[in-house]
Amino acid sequence: MSSELAALNEELKKIRQDADRIMDSSSASSSKPPVAREKISKMSAQVVDSNPYSRLMALQKMGVVEDYEAIRKKTVVVIGVGGVGSVVAEMLTRCGVGKLILFDYDKVELANMNRLFYQPHQAGFSKVEAARETLVHINPDVEIEAHNYNIITVDNYDNFLDRLVHGGLNGERIDLALSCVDNYEARVVVNKACNDLNLVWMNSGVKENAVSGQIQLMDPGRTACFMCIPPGIVAEEGDEKTLKRDGVCAASLPTTMGIVAGFLVQNTLKYLLKFGTVSGYLGYNALEDFFQKDGLKPNPECSERKCIERQKEYMARVAAEGPKEEKVKEEEKEIVHESNEWGIEIGGEEDLTQFTPASIQPSFADETPATTSKADVAALMAAMKNM
Amino acid sequence: MSSELAALNEELKKIRQDADRIMDSSSASSSKPPVAREKISKMSAQVVDSNPYSRLMALQKMGVVEDYEAIRKKTVVVIGVGGVGSVVAEMLTRCGVGKLILFDYDKVELANMNRLFYQPHQAGFSKVEAARETLVHINPDVEIEAHNYNIITVDNYDNFLDRLVHGGLNGERIDLALSCVDNYEARVVVNKACNDLNLVWMNSGVKENAVSGQIQLMDPGRTACFMCIPPGIVAEEGDEKTLKRDGVCAASLPTTMGIVAGFLVQNTLKYLLKFGTVSGYLGYNALEDFFQKDGLKPNPECSERKCIERQKEYMARVAAEGPKEEKVKEEEKEIVHESNEWGIEIGGEEDLTQFTPASIQPSFADETPATTSKADVAALMAAMKNM
Repeated sequence: MSSELAALNEELKKIRQDADRIMDSSSASSSKPPVAREKISKMSAQVVDSNPYSRLMALQKMGVVEDYEAIRKKTVVVIGVGGVGSVVAEMLTRCGVGKLILFDYDKVELANMNRLFYQPHQAGFSKVEAARETLVHINPDVEIEAHNYNIITVDNYDNFLDRLVHGGLNGERIDLALSCVDNYEARVVVNKACNDLNLVWMNSGVKENAVSGQIQLMDPGRTACFMCIPPGIVAEEGDEKTLKRDGVCAASLPTTMGIVAGFLVQNTLKYLLKFGTVSGYLGYNALEDFFQKDGLKPNPECSERKCIERQKEYMARVAAEGPKEEKVKEEEKEIVHESNEWGIEIGGEEDLTQFTPASIQPSFADETPATTSKADVAALMAAMKNM
Repeated sequence: MSSELAALNEELKKIRQDADRIMDSSSASSSKPPVAREKISKMSAQVVDSNPYSRLMALQKMGVVEDYEAIRKKTVVVIGVGGVGSVVAEMLTRCGVGKLILFDYDKVELANMNRLFYQPHQAGFSKVEAARETLVHINPDVEIEAHNYNIITVDNYDNFLDRLVHGGLNGERIDLALSCVDNYEARVVVNKACNDLNLVWMNSGVKENAVSGQIQLMDPGRTACFMCIPPGIVAEEGDEKTLKRDGVCAASLPTTMGIVAGFLVQNTLKYLLKFGTVSGYLGYNALEDFFQKDGLKPNPECSERKCIERQKEYMARVAAEGPKEEKVKEEEKEIVHESNEWGIEIGGEEDLTQFTPASIQPSFADETPATTSKADVAALMAAMKNM
């Protein structure tokens, strides 16, 4: 009887292991499609139907990008994989980025099905796990690291910082952080982390009415940070800290969110692969198809102590090296401005802000239609806080 | 000891049942995910996680759309479900359009994996069938009709025309055609069909270098048709008819294609649901984040006989009814221009063309940055032919 019991216990253990393994593998989609291709060790430009990178490597032949394969060495962090962040992650995966690190603490719901990416059978699963499974299937060459927690709590914040500093390929710093969250607090946290670590990041936002959105580049000390906006300017909706209210159903559209995701990843590709002009700020108003382009310089009165420090460092560097592009990493070279293929001229660079340190000239894009006033730009920046 | 044994046996039985259930469900759907939700007969604005339409119906509460559910009565045709068209179809499906009719004759290849939508396990399947299966899974409320043929051959053209006239819900005319093809010949065919049938359509295109694209509204007689561009103006790449060459690998990016798809569906939603300003032309240059907005009036010298007829009909209608919006369908009311939330002014309406019938004033959007010359607009139009 005792040996029977031991045998049963042994059998039980094996079955439990099998069950766990099955549950693990079926995780987000109980019906995962089979992996359809093997990993590819080197990107090829060969024009055959079976090459998933031929249309990307063709960017080199087209004269758009000098070294496309450099993308495989890049690590991008995506904070928030909802309506914008999930599409951002998918685009970067299809572009063959080296590594993606995803942060989110939400679950997929049927109420998310009006945006791209998640599918109904993933309802109930964590967004990062559902995303990871889909992304690995789409492109097994991309390393995906998923964190299912809220970055703003004290415990998680330290781990979040650690991933920014050591999460890159080979344990190095990541190359770029992309904020795709839907609330003020999380943006403040990302801003603080990136100011502290001197890390370039881009913010994105879509308004609650679903018909406008924007992206913004933040390069500590060189551009405005998220807290640089004068506190006197608040957007029409009221207190920015309470804008995302529980129980209030914000509208959203797959169009606006897909477009904002596209802008964010396009700017990311231009930044990482050094082509075109990286935009400092790009706003989209869907009702009028109006696009706002700016870059804001940092506010010397910014409430973020670290931002002020970065500004001083940047000014010292500019004074020492002359008024050229800050090298975010040593190997980075100056952004090459490609010719305007349509030969259309738009307004040149202007001083767009009311709080600009006199000697700093960003070399990223700051073009603006001539009719935009300084007040408009500040209002836009403030409105962004509410997205 | 005996009771312990009984408990173990009981536990073992439960685990075995669980394992059998898991094995059954995973083998039954080895590739296709299970249908995750039932059809929904009426769109609800109720704010619950299980409602896939809550964020869309919220557009009403936000004051953006008056009657969102009207979308369920609309039928949209998508010609070409490649890098742009597949994302267009997914966005419209997630928006809950009544019916989609898809045309394509291509197969999914791994070489398409650098764009959104198709996944590696679909390689080898026809694009329309692969698309249909994914779309039905995402939103079973949308009726999907898929045609796996080339619309430009004589046999297929008649069937194509029939679907435009009778493919709508309840056998009626469709509401809008969207061209997402990648070649000149197919656009000429769509243009001819829509001129003949007096059907509004929108064109889209992405350039071979992957970093620019555009959308354009064509309303027979009221706006320029695809053939209205003066033949003397040809784009930089040479003969527009031979631009898409076999064996030449065009570059493409998920960003640019996703953005163009977003613009096309956004314009579609504004057109079908009557909100915001429907754009006549919207161009996107990714390198500079430059956006070109225009609308071109029809060319009285157009080579398309039917276009000339439609122009005369339109002029007669304008003369009889006054210079207001043409009613494409009788129940259509005037497009309401929402207020510009940012309070930013851009250049007003101008006569942008060199071949404009004097008395016709389109009431759709024709705003243009003040620095754009007439020659630029014509060049843009010509360039579009090459996309």
